[in-house]
Amino acid sequence: MDIKNRVAIIGAGCTKFGENYEMTYEDMVIDATYEAYEDAGVEPQDIQAAWIGTSRYELIGQRGAATSISQPLGLFEIPITRVSNYCCTGMEAVRNAALGILSGLYDVVLAVGAEKMREVGSRESLISGAHNAGHPFLKKGYTGPGLFSLLANRYFHTYGITREHLARVAVKNHHNGSLNPKAHFQMEVDVDRVLNAPLVSYPLGRLDCCPTTDGASAVILTRSELAKNFRDDPILIQGIGLNVGSEMNVFDGEFDFLGFRPTQKAAEEAYQQAGIRNPRKDIDVAEIHDCFTITEIIDYEDLGFCERGQGGDLIIDGVTSLEGDLPVNTGGGLKSYGHPIGATGVRMIHDIYKQLQGKSGFRQVKNAKTGLAHTLGGPGAIGCVFILGKQ
Amino acid sequence: MDIKNRVAIIGAGCTKFGENYEMTYEDMVIDATYEAYEDAGVEPQDIQAAWIGTSRYELIGQRGAATSISQPLGLFEIPITRVSNYCCTGMEAVRNAALGILSGLYDVVLAVGAEKMREVGSRESLISGAHNAGHPFLKKGYTGPGLFSLLANRYFHTYGITREHLARVAVKNHHNGSLNPKAHFQMEVDVDRVLNAPLVSYPLGRLDCCPTTDGASAVILTRSELAKNFRDDPILIQGIGLNVGSEMNVFDGEFDFLGFRPTQKAAEEAYQQAGIRNPRKDIDVAEIHDCFTITEIIDYEDLGFCERGQGGDLIIDGVTSLEGDLPVNTGGGLKSYGHPIGATGVRMIHDIYKQLQGKSGFRQVKNAKTGLAHTLGGPGAIGCVFILGKQ
Repeated sequence: MDIKNRVAIIGAGCTKFGENYEMTYEDMVIDATYEAYEDAGVEPQDIQAAWIGTSRYELIGQRGAATSISQPLGLFEIPITRVSNYCCTGMEAVRNAALGILSGLYDVVLAVGAEKMREVGSRESLISGAHNAGHPFLKKGYTGPGLFSLLANRYFHTYGITREHLARVAVKNHHNGSLNPKAHFQMEVDVDRVLNAPLVSYPLGRLDCCPTTDGASAVILTRSELAKNFRDDPILIQGIGLNVGSEMNVFDGEFDFLGFRPTQKAAEEAYQQAGIRNPRKDIDVAEIHDCFTITEIIDYEDLGFCERGQGGDLIIDGVTSLEGDLPVNTGGGLKSYGHPIGATGVRMIHDIYKQLQGKSGFRQVKNAKTGLAHTLGGPGAIGCVFILGKQ
Repeated sequence: MDIKNRVAIIGAGCTKFGENYEMTYEDMVIDATYEAYEDAGVEPQDIQAAWIGTSRYELIGQRGAATSISQPLGLFEIPITRVSNYCCTGMEAVRNAALGILSGLYDVVLAVGAEKMREVGSRESLISGAHNAGHPFLKKGYTGPGLFSLLANRYFHTYGITREHLARVAVKNHHNGSLNPKAHFQMEVDVDRVLNAPLVSYPLGRLDCCPTTDGASAVILTRSELAKNFRDDPILIQGIGLNVGSEMNVFDGEFDFLGFRPTQKAAEEAYQQAGIRNPRKDIDVAEIHDCFTITEIIDYEDLGFCERGQGGDLIIDGVTSLEGDLPVNTGGGLKSYGHPIGATGVRMIHDIYKQLQGKSGFRQVKNAKTGLAHTLGGPGAIGCVFILGKQ
């Protein structure tokens, strides 16, 4: 059955992303959700089911269960499910909530993504946890930057781009973040500063990497035919692709270190559902997974925004800047907005929703009618793509 | 929209439960899933989406993501989601898979539950982990047996039953387990042995508590109208209730220590969907959450199998024995089958499916047409109830 235009987003909320030492996980969940309630004009008792995405609950003493949000929100006596799926965790909350709406069992549902990442010692850090969890590439002494630096080097070798191309991604995303009061980093950087930052794993320097961030975001979904009861400008889900590939693909012979098949396949599925044939032309604004600057360039190609090897041109030519044909990461991206794992996918959908409603302030893209959100999970193992559109 | 009879179970598999030191988590996932494939007559490539339920992935170096099953099963390029929800984790995999079928997006989906609990030192044990996770009752010095012993004492005081009533639950469930080649414990116990076992938390002795167990189980779902393409005896989902209550309810004024509201509300919802008005009469066989013997007696009342305070009579009168009017925990229950958290709910659905197909061997209940499965999660915070029926 078709998914296109059957589920509507009628409300969205998002905390300030950053070092939220003054807020607990629960505080962030409440802030994001009540902003979404207010935006949708719903009361807590209107919510018939909910999904919460949090990836690393054990790091901060969270519960790994529905009660992580039922307790702070006082959302009792409804079904609530916790989901997790690496960096696609937030989008999984929204995707499963959308399946709940499509099932016909629920009319109004809530999806929340939240992650508290700053209050963790290095022993329990994300990298340490990932190492302990037995990730094949980390076991071999690689880290996140280590893996993506392999891709960057391979990409440099194959297509001849340089560190300056990568730096331009950081410059663009920091510029966008500087216009976004909810971004973790709200400072501009220039190419020299990016190039002169301490190296993490060649060719990736510190300003090529996304930060470690706290944050939460929430969206409220309903059946499209009910959406106008809540607001005049609901945003519709036109397609959702989720594609789980092989965690080992970084080591098997099929991986060319130049693209991620789960992103390609997830995009293919979402485009088919949404009826998108030419992403570069049909997509007006996109929030995509730029955990590292090289990732954004590879995403351009995996998502069909350009041909293979042309990703560097897109950034140099300004195509993906705020004033370009296809603005990408208008909120600052993972690079500048920050990347609280469970929150990120929901935050992206929140941002595209606001863009399509024309409510993105200084970052507003003109006449945006169709938007895309994308996350890439684990060691390139999971891709998720949402296409959203105006009614 | 109605859920009744719209989703069919066409295959189920289950590992031997127990101290599976010779099997990895992945081995168990493979065994359970391939048994389900064979039972359904499907090939891996027929699976269009999947859900995996594992509660405590970090204890055993698991990934906390879809790749926990995509890797061992070679299930690539489809959507797979990980869910967790305390002891309702396994049922949540099946429930979200059922929503996937109801959404109309998928025709054939897989739900797997798996948990590896024996290969963990005491420092990382379930109780230790629960303590660290900040459960309110554990923080106050209580443990799982500690909480349920409060209920047992209150129940004794209010309704006048004794330790012998509890022992009879253990005797029944161990008897059933002794007939079940997949149970962790396959030994009979008598009342004296249960009463003379070392005390854990009065009045609960060691044989009043479920063990710590490894295991995995899997089911395959399709739309009901497609079920006959796979087998002549599919089993239909007639109702699903999931109800998230308050984690604090053990300390607030509304908790009477005699019943769990999430179970009551989940049952109410599932009964309404299934059109069940008199559970005692309409349910032919049930697998319910007997983490402790007292829990089974309280479940009887929360699920409406008898009036308040009559749970002890049900066990003494043999109503819930294999030969009784309403056989309960015919596989041995958590008590004797074992309780690998993520696997348990799926295992229960597997068992009811086999009972309704008349394939339960020595444990077969005659003419079973309608069955119930129930799990209780966290500190009495989450209840989940499935009603299954023959076509």
